[in-house]
Amino acid sequence: MASTKESLPWQTLASTHRDRAFANIPKEWHLSPEILSAISPDARISVAHIPAQSKILSPRELEITETLDATALLQKIGAAEYSAAEVCTAFCKRAAVAQQLTHCLTEIFFEAAQERAKFLDEYLKKNGRPLGPLHGLPISLKDSLNVTGEYSTIGYVSFISHGPAKKNSPLVDILLSLGAVLYVKTNLPQSCMTADSHNNIFDRTLNPNNLALTAGGSSGGEGALIALRGSLLGVGTDIAGSIRIPSICCGTYGFRPSASRIPMGGQAIPARPGVPCFLPVTGPLAASARDLRLFMESVIRADPWKSDHNCLPIKWNVPEEQKKLRIGLILEDPLRACEPEVLHTLQSAAQRLTSAGHEVIPVTKFPSIVGAEKLALSYFALDNEHYPIYHATKAGEPLIPSLTAAIEAGFGYEKKTMTLEDLVQMNVEKEELIENWNEVFERDSFDVLLTPGAPHQAVPHDTYLRTTYTIVWNLVDNPACIIPIATPTENGHDATEDLHEGTVKHTVQVVGRNLQDEALLHCVERISVALNYST
Amino acid sequence: MASTKESLPWQTLASTHRDRAFANIPKEWHLSPEILSAISPDARISVAHIPAQSKILSPRELEITETLDATALLQKIGAAEYSAAEVCTAFCKRAAVAQQLTHCLTEIFFEAAQERAKFLDEYLKKNGRPLGPLHGLPISLKDSLNVTGEYSTIGYVSFISHGPAKKNSPLVDILLSLGAVLYVKTNLPQSCMTADSHNNIFDRTLNPNNLALTAGGSSGGEGALIALRGSLLGVGTDIAGSIRIPSICCGTYGFRPSASRIPMGGQAIPARPGVPCFLPVTGPLAASARDLRLFMESVIRADPWKSDHNCLPIKWNVPEEQKKLRIGLILEDPLRACEPEVLHTLQSAAQRLTSAGHEVIPVTKFPSIVGAEKLALSYFALDNEHYPIYHATKAGEPLIPSLTAAIEAGFGYEKKTMTLEDLVQMNVEKEELIENWNEVFERDSFDVLLTPGAPHQAVPHDTYLRTTYTIVWNLVDNPACIIPIATPTENGHDATEDLHEGTVKHTVQVVGRNLQDEALLHCVERISVALNYST
Repeated sequence: MASTKESLPWQTLASTHRDRAFANIPKEWHLSPEILSAISPDARISVAHIPAQSKILSPRELEITETLDATALLQKIGAAEYSAAEVCTAFCKRAAVAQQLTHCLTEIFFEAAQERAKFLDEYLKKNGRPLGPLHGLPISLKDSLNVTGEYSTIGYVSFISHGPAKKNSPLVDILLSLGAVLYVKTNLPQSCMTADSHNNIFDRTLNPNNLALTAGGSSGGEGALIALRGSLLGVGTDIAGSIRIPSICCGTYGFRPSASRIPMGGQAIPARPGVPCFLPVTGPLAASARDLRLFMESVIRADPWKSDHNCLPIKWNVPEEQKKLRIGLILEDPLRACEPEVLHTLQSAAQRLTSAGHEVIPVTKFPSIVGAEKLALSYFALDNEHYPIYHATKAGEPLIPSLTAAIEAGFGYEKKTMTLEDLVQMNVEKEELIENWNEVFERDSFDVLLTPGAPHQAVPHDTYLRTTYTIVWNLVDNPACIIPIATPTENGHDATEDLHEGTVKHTVQVVGRNLQDEALLHCVERISVALNYST
Repeated sequence: MASTKESLPWQTLASTHRDRAFANIPKEWHLSPEILSAISPDARISVAHIPAQSKILSPRELEITETLDATALLQKIGAAEYSAAEVCTAFCKRAAVAQQLTHCLTEIFFEAAQERAKFLDEYLKKNGRPLGPLHGLPISLKDSLNVTGEYSTIGYVSFISHGPAKKNSPLVDILLSLGAVLYVKTNLPQSCMTADSHNNIFDRTLNPNNLALTAGGSSGGEGALIALRGSLLGVGTDIAGSIRIPSICCGTYGFRPSASRIPMGGQAIPARPGVPCFLPVTGPLAASARDLRLFMESVIRADPWKSDHNCLPIKWNVPEEQKKLRIGLILEDPLRACEPEVLHTLQSAAQRLTSAGHEVIPVTKFPSIVGAEKLALSYFALDNEHYPIYHATKAGEPLIPSLTAAIEAGFGYEKKTMTLEDLVQMNVEKEELIENWNEVFERDSFDVLLTPGAPHQAVPHDTYLRTTYTIVWNLVDNPACIIPIATPTENGHDATEDLHEGTVKHTVQVVGRNLQDEALLHCVERISVALNYST
């Protein structure tokens, strides 16, 4: 059967696969043709208001999806103020709307989610306590995570023939054991190596704040879905910025943990096994800073190293309360200049942090960030067989435009064949870089660095070619977090309430020290309060 | 000056360096010409009795060095029953005797040690409490560890020109902060890649139980010194068995921790920086099982990741008390048959463990150990420039016989040039091997595996060519421990008292799970009690 199927044109395979997935959206949740007709990758419009106006969600469902973060929602489910079932329905509806507006989803399993939510409601009723710290929370998953019975095509037509996953990724099992409700998987780029979450099966994810801009990638489906509050907490992966770039583009929180804290095992991956490289990581995108901690703390307290041997057995390390943070400010690497609005965002963030009582100290000497990007990309080039491209060409499908552009720009695939000697030199350079960044932290006893996440905010489709300011932290393996900064509203009310209005377009990146994820998350919460809440 | 010095013949450089080091042994501690005349690498004699008979140590110094392990000795120093100064003198004397019998030392700094011990005695007197958990304990260090002002030639004449170390290795700083007294560095092979601790500067370390046998390597100076109780606790390093092989040959306890638990940073190393390989580790050799734990716990509780960024921030994890251990028994890989006495040792150990109430279950299916050895050696071969040999040939000195033999036997240096593609294939094979060994543990819920450490016990010089049963655990990164088994004495008294008599020649290897060093150490103590103490 598989061989017959594979002999079909890729277009047929892709459209059949897509139609099957989207048939899981009930007809009554379809947007009106009037709304849909305006949706296009060229439309310079925000769709942030549409979920509320679509009439698909009831007022109570809008309340559930719009007014809380995951932490607060969990409290209400735990107190039986909301049932897991109604929360599930609300987010399924909103995710369905988000999908129609931005093409942010891949696999959709609303029915299984409803079953699960009902089970959790019964559990709570029967036992008088939640199943776990994520009891009843709908969590969205990047397509690379395996969920039994669901496909993990990660943007390749050739991966359709792999069939549905036979078992859950270890992280998926952990999330279920903690009480999560799984309902959707989210879109990503063919190859996972560009910042445009676009592929020949599930199309291109659009930016809800402006459809003509990229939603970022590779976890771009998560970025768009969370920005539209079709999910409050989602799981992405990041080897060059794939969690943080969608957060920058869509204005969500996004956390790249240190390598090997959160299970990365048992996922569908584009990379060739065995090629030496710094490690990809799994981590959260979320609606609030404390939701990032909720995810990290819940997963790590579940001893993930027992189910994924590549996870480090580092227990959740309750961070020390820091009254006053020492923050190193890096505005830009002169070789990759930032746009004025990015510099302005950083400078005003520094001012607000200073006003809040923290110390912000400009870092005058630091290793070349552009140099680190170059070194990191040469690690990607070590795959002389170019697996991420091979998987695409295997089915005869064309490369997505952003991948072609990335290759032309020298992203990873150099013309020359890489050698063992290249690797040896690169490893020496990497070790030196790690030492030098450690020195930056130690010289001035910085708690965190405040830096740009990119030299710009969201850009037009297929033009986000440089991951300079994100990939450096993958290479040296420091945890790093994108914090959206709400534009203060005129009446001075809590600016985070505007998250779903699409008004958040500015972000900063905060960087901690290797494996001190807990300490960074603590600082992120402090910094987020200073930058986003009127006090 | 350095260039003038380097133009001298290597023989002159080596002998000058050696004479300078050994001039630090006071004349009154020299053994009689009568005793010395019997010392030779061909002499099939034990020298285990000589320290007691030499009259260099007083009866009290013999008591200090012979009757206690480090844990008990620390209690007595803490209670001021022994002063740190007299303990220091006792071990300096005994190390001096051991050096003359077995050539186990490199750098000797008795005077600095005495100063330090006096300082500690004053500290205790003044403060009423010890400086730290290792207060007053003399700790010996493999030559690769840097101690400010001392050389780290690691068996290369060419390294003499590096001059004395300008700063301590991070681990050395930690040991000092914990109260240790440092007094000697210990011998190792030119290249650190053979099991004969032999080089052209400090000569060949002999086995105190039988001078005609190897003391093992690469931390062979530690093995001989501890077997003669010239040290109770020493620090070695291990990338193929370099802690465990001397323990096997000399009959001491030796523990190979998981990678990155104990600082490996800031040491002199023979390897070419940047060459991809599984990691070397630093760990203890000791006179008792609990002393291994003492070392591991003290160092890890000192937050070593703060001074060595390559250390994992995994806090000391107090292991659960296990009443009954589940022990998987692996007698041998059929492709590397063990000598009958090794099999007999394992079988009788299994019997004693069963009698002590533990479950010993033969492992019927396990990955090829010989295959793992082959794979591990091909990682060493990835250094196409053969640095460990280059450092030797640089000064014109000849290779030691065991290194020549190892090269001929294919130890690491294959004729062909290794490529990036080789590495990719090897990495895939390694990952699979790690998975398969994890399965061995999980399938039967084993706490530990009981295996041979080698297919033989100590062998004649330059014939210990295969590290099969030790290197497998470096490759898959499981902690592993050598436990010496005392030959029960006829009158049934506590057999460990015979450790210094040179009667211990049998050992077993006990293997735990990656990064679960605490759990393994707990099992090692339990197993050691069952195997070494009459109950």
